[in-house]
Amino acid sequence: MQIDATHDTNLISWVEGADGHPDWPVQNLPLGVFAGEDGTPRIGTAIGDHIVDLDGLGRTDLLDEDWADALQQPMLNAFFALGADAMQGLRERLSLLLTSESHRAEVEPHLVAMDAVEMQMPALPGDYTDFYVGIHHATNVGKLFRPDNPLLPNYKYVPIGYHGRASSVRVSGHPVIRPKGQKRPAEEGAAPNVGPSSRLDYELEMGIWVGEGNALGDPIPLGEAEQHIAGYCLLNDWSARDLQAWEYQPLGPFLAKSFLTTVSPWVITPQALAPFMQEMPARPTNDPEPLDYLKGGPSKAALGIHLEVHLLTAKMREAGEAPHVLSKGEAASAMYWSAAQIVTHHASNGCNLQPGDLIGTGTLSTSEEAGYGSLLELSDGGKKPITLPNGETRTFLEDGDEVTLVARCDADGAASIALGSCTGRVMAARA
Amino acid sequence: MQIDATHDTNLISWVEGADGHPDWPVQNLPLGVFAGEDGTPRIGTAIGDHIVDLDGLGRTDLLDEDWADALQQPMLNAFFALGADAMQGLRERLSLLLTSESHRAEVEPHLVAMDAVEMQMPALPGDYTDFYVGIHHATNVGKLFRPDNPLLPNYKYVPIGYHGRASSVRVSGHPVIRPKGQKRPAEEGAAPNVGPSSRLDYELEMGIWVGEGNALGDPIPLGEAEQHIAGYCLLNDWSARDLQAWEYQPLGPFLAKSFLTTVSPWVITPQALAPFMQEMPARPTNDPEPLDYLKGGPSKAALGIHLEVHLLTAKMREAGEAPHVLSKGEAASAMYWSAAQIVTHHASNGCNLQPGDLIGTGTLSTSEEAGYGSLLELSDGGKKPITLPNGETRTFLEDGDEVTLVARCDADGAASIALGSCTGRVMAARA
Repeated sequence: MQIDATHDTNLISWVEGADGHPDWPVQNLPLGVFAGEDGTPRIGTAIGDHIVDLDGLGRTDLLDEDWADALQQPMLNAFFALGADAMQGLRERLSLLLTSESHRAEVEPHLVAMDAVEMQMPALPGDYTDFYVGIHHATNVGKLFRPDNPLLPNYKYVPIGYHGRASSVRVSGHPVIRPKGQKRPAEEGAAPNVGPSSRLDYELEMGIWVGEGNALGDPIPLGEAEQHIAGYCLLNDWSARDLQAWEYQPLGPFLAKSFLTTVSPWVITPQALAPFMQEMPARPTNDPEPLDYLKGGPSKAALGIHLEVHLLTAKMREAGEAPHVLSKGEAASAMYWSAAQIVTHHASNGCNLQPGDLIGTGTLSTSEEAGYGSLLELSDGGKKPITLPNGETRTFLEDGDEVTLVARCDADGAASIALGSCTGRVMAARA
Repeated sequence: MQIDATHDTNLISWVEGADGHPDWPVQNLPLGVFAGEDGTPRIGTAIGDHIVDLDGLGRTDLLDEDWADALQQPMLNAFFALGADAMQGLRERLSLLLTSESHRAEVEPHLVAMDAVEMQMPALPGDYTDFYVGIHHATNVGKLFRPDNPLLPNYKYVPIGYHGRASSVRVSGHPVIRPKGQKRPAEEGAAPNVGPSSRLDYELEMGIWVGEGNALGDPIPLGEAEQHIAGYCLLNDWSARDLQAWEYQPLGPFLAKSFLTTVSPWVITPQALAPFMQEMPARPTNDPEPLDYLKGGPSKAALGIHLEVHLLTAKMREAGEAPHVLSKGEAASAMYWSAAQIVTHHASNGCNLQPGDLIGTGTLSTSEEAGYGSLLELSDGGKKPITLPNGETRTFLEDGDEVTLVARCDADGAASIALGSCTGRVMAARA
């Protein structure tokens, strides 16, 4: 993606509070779906403390009439299907409309106060795939099983991924009901216990929303992969470690993950991220070059995104305390494979990606403990409880704990933007 | 499901050719979707050599008006959502209409010749899950890796399953384009080759179509599981063994499977299968009892279905020869867990199943080689080529090979029915 006039730090929006807004300045313009006054879902973009109702605006002659049908849908799937040119076109048009005083009178009636509405799922994922490209996470988890040889031989050739459950993806704020299931027996050969997970964890991930799809049988060359990405979000891949340890051989995680996956509501477009993209981190000297189909592609393919995980326990909430920062890290240094490589690999066997499909990156831990993206890693597999400022300790999540993922982008010469947040509070298992 | 008047072997349909029809007598009444004259998809039921157009019939007062909206959809998802009572109600009504001469004049205009239409996907699966309940298959595959200890410790407690790719599920007849991908290197530590799979295989499975769904967070007790099954089909889980062997650790099969999954077009209802259900095979003496949540349930939970796999090579096709029968087996003796146990386990963590979701059983091999459900097993991991009657040999599938799964039910005192067939021909990889 090119840095263009829509990123200019000198752009001034007529929307009150938008200029210098820490999250949603006019250089961001994310897409999302909010519940309108009558509760029906409507597509919008965030600007300052407001949302532009694109369903309404799309019915005027201010937007391209080719987009109107798609913008009147309750989900973004149809707009994503229009492809990267429509995404760029809408961005340029919105940038103009929101900075040009001459359009103010026509656009202002379509503004909604953000705090008056609830955000909903931005798209309906036909399929949800979760990858495992966080190399420090893969190394940390691998060490728990194979201390001397944490990464399997395929890791540096294959962007490892697996299919997830699409039906249980929910937008930020959805309650996290502690799942029940079979838990690994303490002794080998014993029968498993069945009950609420006692090793409930979060996983800090980025989500990739698929834009224009590919036909079944048609791979996506790396040079075209970014054209198939509609945008990014935060993703929490809630994980029941005790269910996972028992069930995952030989076919991978299943019920340990499928009870809920949470995404942040705003789709941050590749266009908005353009000023923050970085070169992929250099591969260590002994690592193999990417195979031909995964080589090349965009020169700046690494996501320059700061990531944080916040924890607010029930006790902290009652005491009116601020959330505790569990970790701070950088997506760019965590990802061994880029989003473009993920997309190209996914379609390399002819698998068809569809507009609105969701792809998780896998847990994005940095190489330092301060940037570990799960409690499994922070507590060293549950062996070392972490102590919170109020004296509470945690190995895994307790009922009442609220986990919030947040992400921001900052770079010299660019207006800072946010990706929003992705939150969920743990509720007791159903009786 | 109860055996009732709709199963009576003495029922006579006024539809010509329906009585004693080997596949679609009036005791079967499967649901499917066919392309109407104008190419638009319409819901129908098979009777003899005809299809009753239920879109058309549903607009008359012959069917319950509560079903009309759902029967006018291009897919069965909405009708499945109405639940088991609607399924039973439609069956009883169709049985009456197709056997009662007094309704002939009203119903006959809605008959379509089966050979004049193309069948389509019966439902759009929101999620596709594949299980691994074929214990002889799991044992055979496990032996390739662990000759002395083929089944992992969790197998007899957990109905093992994993998420599959929903977007690439296609109806019988869809071409099988040989997938490309990274193949396990011959030597440990070497770089993988990238290219067309040279170990392309089929897997003989049953598919379960989900009927009424459950809300996220609400498990499905075993006693209610059958109410959530809309019906059954044949399913071919095409598999690229060389891609699978390299990619599947640690998160399970991915690109080795996601290029295509094929299903037979007709949904055979649990009601139609009632006369053929059997007691689950006795568990071997040393096997653990099912855990509480998987214990009990319907008394006859085993699918009494005969399964066959046919292979027609390009050479056989050119010579006008009949397909070769690769295997014959029985679903009931192959499945360690019942369809009801699969459904209950799947939802036991609160995962929401949705109407039209597809669940594969996993490969259904019997204990004897004559009933092995994949070439991986028949050729002992590719080590022992099988010889076809015309002298050709196969370890895995060659371009031009056509694999057809077929299934039938026969039982004393019941009219025999078919499940139809599931076929696919292998095409060369894309250049």
